[in-house]
Amino acid sequence: MKKNSERILLAHGSGGKLMQELIQESILPNFKSPILKKLNDSAVFSLGNKRIAYTTDSYVVNPIFFPGGDIGSLAVWGTVNDLAMVGAQPLYLTLSLIIEEGFLRSDLDRILFSIKRACRKADIEVVGGDLKVVEKGSADKIFINSSGVGMVSKGVNISACGARAGDKVIINGYMAEHGIAILNERENLKFSTKIKSDSAPLNGLVKDMLSVSRSVHTMRDPTRGGVAAVLNEIAQASNVGILVYEDKLPMTEVVKGACEMLGFDPLYVANEGKLLAFVSPEDAETVLESMRKNPYGRKSQIIGEVVRGSKRTVFLKTSIGGTRIIDMPSGEQLPRIC
Amino acid sequence: MKKNSERILLAHGSGGKLMQELIQESILPNFKSPILKKLNDSAVFSLGNKRIAYTTDSYVVNPIFFPGGDIGSLAVWGTVNDLAMVGAQPLYLTLSLIIEEGFLRSDLDRILFSIKRACRKADIEVVGGDLKVVEKGSADKIFINSSGVGMVSKGVNISACGARAGDKVIINGYMAEHGIAILNERENLKFSTKIKSDSAPLNGLVKDMLSVSRSVHTMRDPTRGGVAAVLNEIAQASNVGILVYEDKLPMTEVVKGACEMLGFDPLYVANEGKLLAFVSPEDAETVLESMRKNPYGRKSQIIGEVVRGSKRTVFLKTSIGGTRIIDMPSGEQLPRIC
Repeated sequence: MKKNSERILLAHGSGGKLMQELIQESILPNFKSPILKKLNDSAVFSLGNKRIAYTTDSYVVNPIFFPGGDIGSLAVWGTVNDLAMVGAQPLYLTLSLIIEEGFLRSDLDRILFSIKRACRKADIEVVGGDLKVVEKGSADKIFINSSGVGMVSKGVNISACGARAGDKVIINGYMAEHGIAILNERENLKFSTKIKSDSAPLNGLVKDMLSVSRSVHTMRDPTRGGVAAVLNEIAQASNVGILVYEDKLPMTEVVKGACEMLGFDPLYVANEGKLLAFVSPEDAETVLESMRKNPYGRKSQIIGEVVRGSKRTVFLKTSIGGTRIIDMPSGEQLPRIC
Repeated sequence: MKKNSERILLAHGSGGKLMQELIQESILPNFKSPILKKLNDSAVFSLGNKRIAYTTDSYVVNPIFFPGGDIGSLAVWGTVNDLAMVGAQPLYLTLSLIIEEGFLRSDLDRILFSIKRACRKADIEVVGGDLKVVEKGSADKIFINSSGVGMVSKGVNISACGARAGDKVIINGYMAEHGIAILNERENLKFSTKIKSDSAPLNGLVKDMLSVSRSVHTMRDPTRGGVAAVLNEIAQASNVGILVYEDKLPMTEVVKGACEMLGFDPLYVANEGKLLAFVSPEDAETVLESMRKNPYGRKSQIIGEVVRGSKRTVFLKTSIGGTRIIDMPSGEQLPRIC
């Protein structure tokens, strides 16, 4: 029973169980769109003779400047990646800024320049925008919303519900770098100056993958909630079981060490330049090879597979040979990671 | 010369001179899209065999519930109206919520229900969304971004740069109601409980107008900065002079009285259910007639015309026969009006 005094918690925005509940209980019952119901990273619909991908995300990352990026590049590439995850070629972007009164004009200019560079790198064009200013104390520095539109080629059908038994699960490189970089910067942990966010545009990588295979069934970028959240979402949407091999998970020693010291499971830490792809076993090696040739895929790795039975569950085969369930994240993860 | 210590002011978000300067100095130099450069309420581009309209806006209105609407309906109809202002039929919407930790779940549910109703009224479908939660004190209750996609029919070419000498300027009803309603509610002025926001979806009205004329050259909704800001924007974009007749401006007595007491010029006060249309003199009466048959156009009125000479300037012919320039708003208007 929901009480009138119930309040929104940070955990409702963490990409885990509470967020799923909120979406299921409060959002989906109001909006019965068959396009929305698929809960893909982008909506896909036909307009005239084209298939369009369309997505939105707001960015509230703290701090706004961090090693490997800033709120501007994050806003561009995050939305570019959401378009890429349904196999779309990103075309147009809108940007909407909410700025706190007193924000430094030079910081705004720095962010706008970063957005410009990020757009050029991802080959996407800003066609619209909005700007709001709120009183000092009514927002924390700057929030950026970006929405994006892209085009999906004929024959491309990538969806969270497309994973099937036998599919190999591929990741395009090292896990957990974004979350640890943000935390390191925010909490002044001084682990290492070498921990940089992995924030990157993945549309070029996806293009390479789709140029060698039409058996990429599912893709998603493991941002909030990390690899664990995304695998659980796909296991649910596709009604399959997923097995992940712990010893195949790509991680740098420094991130691994940071996670151990902080008590974080890297499977639950956010990424901003990673994707998980579910590919038919026949095509998996070919796709992997194409990924490793791309600058954003050099460390690509098959990390698991879709298994028969055990529907809607994600398992980890641990390095020492045991098996444990990887659950959906619950409670508060790292707030304002993106 | 811009100094490094320069800071963003509330006035930068008020839709007036400072905002124009910020857009010209910091934003447009970074983003050289020919689509963006037109600065229409929506971007318009071709995809395949269709012409698409695409827009975004963030809503930070305070208070979030007000007479005549709330942040939810405002977010839906504001974006619907931006699509309608280029003559598009709105199709799909995305919503992105930034919520302050501790926000009441019941208030969220109330807003979501309002969004649902607003979408139904405007015949638009929510196909995507995002939800972020920030720490208590890092945002003021809730901010909502909405972006929208629509389709522009063949032969429809409505743009801020389309106004030409002789065009009649039509408004679809009473001015300044939204701004005064928000202020009345926010500052607890208790002028009258009868002042309601005019917030409304205008796509149906626009459809009626376009069904009787293909000589609607320019449309824009006078939100932030009011009628004065929009007329100045159009005078600049179309490189024309505009003459407005003071005694034709439709206003209720209560709003007129409130503006007088508060010292507001109603021409500068925000509307959320109004449009200004520039129509060829031959078609003006026909369009006016069609508007008056629509529930959102009953009080439609020709309030001015595009005059020869006097480029990029807006004049008011006052009730007592004088003429004065209506300038772009400068300084802070009413912050967080939308």
